[in-house]
Amino acid sequence: MSETTKQIIYLDNAATTPMCDEAAKALSEALAPAFFNPSAKYKPSAGVFENINGARALIKSALGGLTGDVYFNSGGTEGNNTVLFGAKGRKGSRVIIGEGEHDSVYAPAMELKNSGYDVCFAPISADGSVNFEKFKELLNENVSLVSIMHASNETGAINDIAKFVRATKKVAPDAIFHSDGVQAFLKLPLSVASLGVDAYTVTAHKIHGPKGIGALYVKRGAKIKPFLLGGGQEYGFRSGTESSPLILSFAAAVQHEYYKFDENYSKLCNYREYFVKKLRECVPNVAIITPLENSLPNILSVAFENVRGEVLLHCLEEDNILVGTGSACASHHESRFKKLFGLDESHLEGVIRFSFAEENDIGDVDYVIERVAAHVRQLSKTVRQ
Amino acid sequence: MSETTKQIIYLDNAATTPMCDEAAKALSEALAPAFFNPSAKYKPSAGVFENINGARALIKSALGGLTGDVYFNSGGTEGNNTVLFGAKGRKGSRVIIGEGEHDSVYAPAMELKNSGYDVCFAPISADGSVNFEKFKELLNENVSLVSIMHASNETGAINDIAKFVRATKKVAPDAIFHSDGVQAFLKLPLSVASLGVDAYTVTAHKIHGPKGIGALYVKRGAKIKPFLLGGGQEYGFRSGTESSPLILSFAAAVQHEYYKFDENYSKLCNYREYFVKKLRECVPNVAIITPLENSLPNILSVAFENVRGEVLLHCLEEDNILVGTGSACASHHESRFKKLFGLDESHLEGVIRFSFAEENDIGDVDYVIERVAAHVRQLSKTVRQ
Repeated sequence: MSETTKQIIYLDNAATTPMCDEAAKALSEALAPAFFNPSAKYKPSAGVFENINGARALIKSALGGLTGDVYFNSGGTEGNNTVLFGAKGRKGSRVIIGEGEHDSVYAPAMELKNSGYDVCFAPISADGSVNFEKFKELLNENVSLVSIMHASNETGAINDIAKFVRATKKVAPDAIFHSDGVQAFLKLPLSVASLGVDAYTVTAHKIHGPKGIGALYVKRGAKIKPFLLGGGQEYGFRSGTESSPLILSFAAAVQHEYYKFDENYSKLCNYREYFVKKLRECVPNVAIITPLENSLPNILSVAFENVRGEVLLHCLEEDNILVGTGSACASHHESRFKKLFGLDESHLEGVIRFSFAEENDIGDVDYVIERVAAHVRQLSKTVRQ
Repeated sequence: MSETTKQIIYLDNAATTPMCDEAAKALSEALAPAFFNPSAKYKPSAGVFENINGARALIKSALGGLTGDVYFNSGGTEGNNTVLFGAKGRKGSRVIIGEGEHDSVYAPAMELKNSGYDVCFAPISADGSVNFEKFKELLNENVSLVSIMHASNETGAINDIAKFVRATKKVAPDAIFHSDGVQAFLKLPLSVASLGVDAYTVTAHKIHGPKGIGALYVKRGAKIKPFLLGGGQEYGFRSGTESSPLILSFAAAVQHEYYKFDENYSKLCNYREYFVKKLRECVPNVAIITPLENSLPNILSVAFENVRGEVLLHCLEEDNILVGTGSACASHHESRFKKLFGLDESHLEGVIRFSFAEENDIGDVDYVIERVAAHVRQLSKTVRQ
């Protein structure tokens, strides 16, 4: 990281992460030697093609995905669009998605709804997880596609995907089950084979890799049509000249995170635990939205009383502390989420998402909370007057 | 470029190009400071967003596209798919594409044909350009979409797009006219405004930029639906977290090529002229497919007598000379083109595409042609025996 970013306390890692040195090195080093078109017929291209397949094998292995294949694409949005549009079954069939899915699942689902599919939204609980009982009520044999995120990008709440898959396949054995794993990948022990999903979306830039590259795991035999059509790259599943430097950089990030998983996991758990403890001590009436016992260790969504989240965000920015108010991607329109978290009127506008990464220093927490507390005190005073 | 690539005489620049130093530098330098999610609400993100818009303005200007907007995407395949699927009009309406379009136009068109559109293929002449008279015969008021490439990736032949647009709009004023400019961009003087197109596809990796980033020009008011749906990035036209480092690197490549355009153009013309002269002198019965008076200066498609192109490619590779046998992207399946060039039986299998860039040294031409001539002599002897 450069000096500029070092001075900042960056607590918005669920929006995107800085690249790790390993990924940046892999990218820079690949630019010249890996420039050949992997589809050309001479040997240097075959070398690039082999390296891409090496990256593919590594990522497949990190996903626990021996039961299927991994196809590279441009990122999470493309992965999610590919499944929603490529596995939708016949018109009129039922498509179920979680009410709290990321916009890149939600928007394609709305498009399907408008074009004659029976799209249902499985309600989420106040903590951001999908309500399993209510989900089951939506299942029938007419279901062709289900998409439930592995963990919420808003709250970090984990959905027990294996349970959702079993319930789905019992009622609709041929339905495609997809899970958006953009937030969960390498933040949780993972085996897509054990989850039983037909498809799983991941992206590089949430795990210290580059932006513009992601992958879709597809279980062998799952009927999902290609989304980008053309030259037939990626074994016919995703056309477009492969960006080998991005792919190799993605793999380097995965490798780095994979080998440091245990260490990072406990680091993040400790960090968040201390963060929550201090927050509760120092800020009155803060509502913790994230279900601490069932969530990714790196996300903490809270709601402050009588405070506007966006105003607090800008106050903290003055202290060089960067946080989010929820999905950055949803910043282009009014969030669907505020009303879903079951917050009372006084907390409704005060949602802040703190999201951490292994680079965050637990030594900064006291300072961060001190600044949060000071701003909340000041801002809520203004509101109450 | 690294030492490895320097030793090679790379004559497959229409497949992909090595990155120029400017683009590589812009990419490496942007990785750390430009990591922030451009959609987040704090200032460093606004800075990234501003830089993206700066790159957009530069590329728009290089396109001569003041009449519309430029949206970033993952590359040429996505650009072409976006238009084919997003501007197709009502089912049953007529869609016209050139018979020789790139697979990323051709495959979506076949998908439209299978789903009930009246898809017509405008015949190409033996030089790879679209036959204008035959094109006109396909026009009627039921046409909703036309896609004709600016220049052929197989032969470099240029289509007079402005003429095709005028003919189309005269008969079907509301039709969307798209041109795939992946090969032509920065190889020809260009103004999309003068061409009159509604949409124009470009990509970075053909002009010494990185792989995984491209852009679509869309004329203001042209009705093209977004292809990737989600968070509403790129002013709602293309969702997915923007890869700012790739975008800035793309812009650096455009700037570099734009300012050296005149110099490069005459360099490429001289190079090809000498190449053709030597080829004709040294290799008997070589058929020049590329229309030398009406083509991009960097592409030369030829057919050798009684030689298999792929065998010649591998022979030349032994001499460290890399060439193509046509679109690298089409290497996954049998080329549609061989039969379109009107070649006689003895030349049918002998197509080679030489494609040049400004780095190529005219001093290498004698050596290249000497090797080509030697291999052709040897290989054709084997065939005739």
